[in-house]
Amino acid sequence: MNKGYLITFEGGEGCGKSTQIKLLSQFLKEYNFDYILSREPGGATFGEALRKILLDNKSDIDAKTEFLLMSSGRVDHVEKVVKPALERGQIVVLDRFYDSSYAYQGYAGGLDLKDIKYITDFAAGGCKPDLTFLLDISYEDGFDRKARDENLRNLDRFENKDKEFHDKVRLGYLEMAKKEPERFVVIDATKSPEEINKKIVKEFLKRYVQLGKKNESTEKSVDL
Amino acid sequence: MNKGYLITFEGGEGCGKSTQIKLLSQFLKEYNFDYILSREPGGATFGEALRKILLDNKSDIDAKTEFLLMSSGRVDHVEKVVKPALERGQIVVLDRFYDSSYAYQGYAGGLDLKDIKYITDFAAGGCKPDLTFLLDISYEDGFDRKARDENLRNLDRFENKDKEFHDKVRLGYLEMAKKEPERFVVIDATKSPEEINKKIVKEFLKRYVQLGKKNESTEKSVDL
Repeated sequence: MNKGYLITFEGGEGCGKSTQIKLLSQFLKEYNFDYILSREPGGATFGEALRKILLDNKSDIDAKTEFLLMSSGRVDHVEKVVKPALERGQIVVLDRFYDSSYAYQGYAGGLDLKDIKYITDFAAGGCKPDLTFLLDISYEDGFDRKARDENLRNLDRFENKDKEFHDKVRLGYLEMAKKEPERFVVIDATKSPEEINKKIVKEFLKRYVQLGKKNESTEKSVDL
Repeated sequence: MNKGYLITFEGGEGCGKSTQIKLLSQFLKEYNFDYILSREPGGATFGEALRKILLDNKSDIDAKTEFLLMSSGRVDHVEKVVKPALERGQIVVLDRFYDSSYAYQGYAGGLDLKDIKYITDFAAGGCKPDLTFLLDISYEDGFDRKARDENLRNLDRFENKDKEFHDKVRLGYLEMAKKEPERFVVIDATKSPEEINKKIVKEFLKRYVQLGKKNESTEKSVDL
């Protein structure tokens, strides 16, 4: 059904997702892969309104409310951004997707995983990542990195949660990766950004090429 | 579990819900019943932000997105407003509750009723109306009334939907009422407001008194 290829990045706070997405997209651009970057909730007015509510420290909302709100943004984003791009045959790179719901609202937030699965399947409407990079990092290492990068300014609602919560997020992610080893690539996020990028590109190419996907980069040599 | 009593008002556009809720609440106030009026999504900042998105003509969102967004507001409202009031033993009068999701996003919007049920049960967390007044009106009569009352100004996103949609909403409501005759009271909304109010008060008292509920009105005589 999908002609395109869906890559998602997952991981706890401070795992370096943004950096790795930037590096992967530089590679994809350099070698003329047809790709887009996106993230939930996406969309223009609607997505931004949701994002504002979700990240607002003053929004005193519980895990269930948060999960349904995110699921709502998920439908909108999947239908308007992700599916159309995949149908055009593009590579879609997402900064988080539904695994985040399992990790944050399920494993860490205490919602029943059965409910998360039902509602996530409903929201994602059959859209499933081909490849998921899990940037694995401990709470301490992640927090150190965040603090270094941002001088501890403006920690948002998620980042303000405590160590126990983030430990559960991490263990949740690792459990999911164990259940779907063919989809997940778990990466030690304490390595250097360059090392991690190299691994990500290799894993992507190996799988993408195996699938016999075509891209417009065949005339350039790829030196890895 | 509930010590209080949950009354919901349902019906299509122009059915006169607002008028009837006002008249019932005048009765409850007059005879010292301990009650609150509310409606979804409720809450202060969060509820208002959701309401703004939902009613905004520019929000180009589909039935699934809308349903999950409303379900998110539902959790917040149920947990912060409805359940606490019921636990205090209050009568809670709601302007729409989950039956609206079945009618608008299910019967009329085309979502699978099984999905609506799963997600609604998840969101409402066991909170179920004791009594639901369905103000039944045809599209034509409802539209006439709206137009008369409001000079056709500012029809919001729901009201702009067409006749076919509103017919499905109506039939959906009637089907639900048929399935749960002990909970639903179906009222011909073309009758006069005074007649309708009289019926609503009678049905409420009959059931409320049957339940052996106590209220502080016993020293006043109720002349119906």
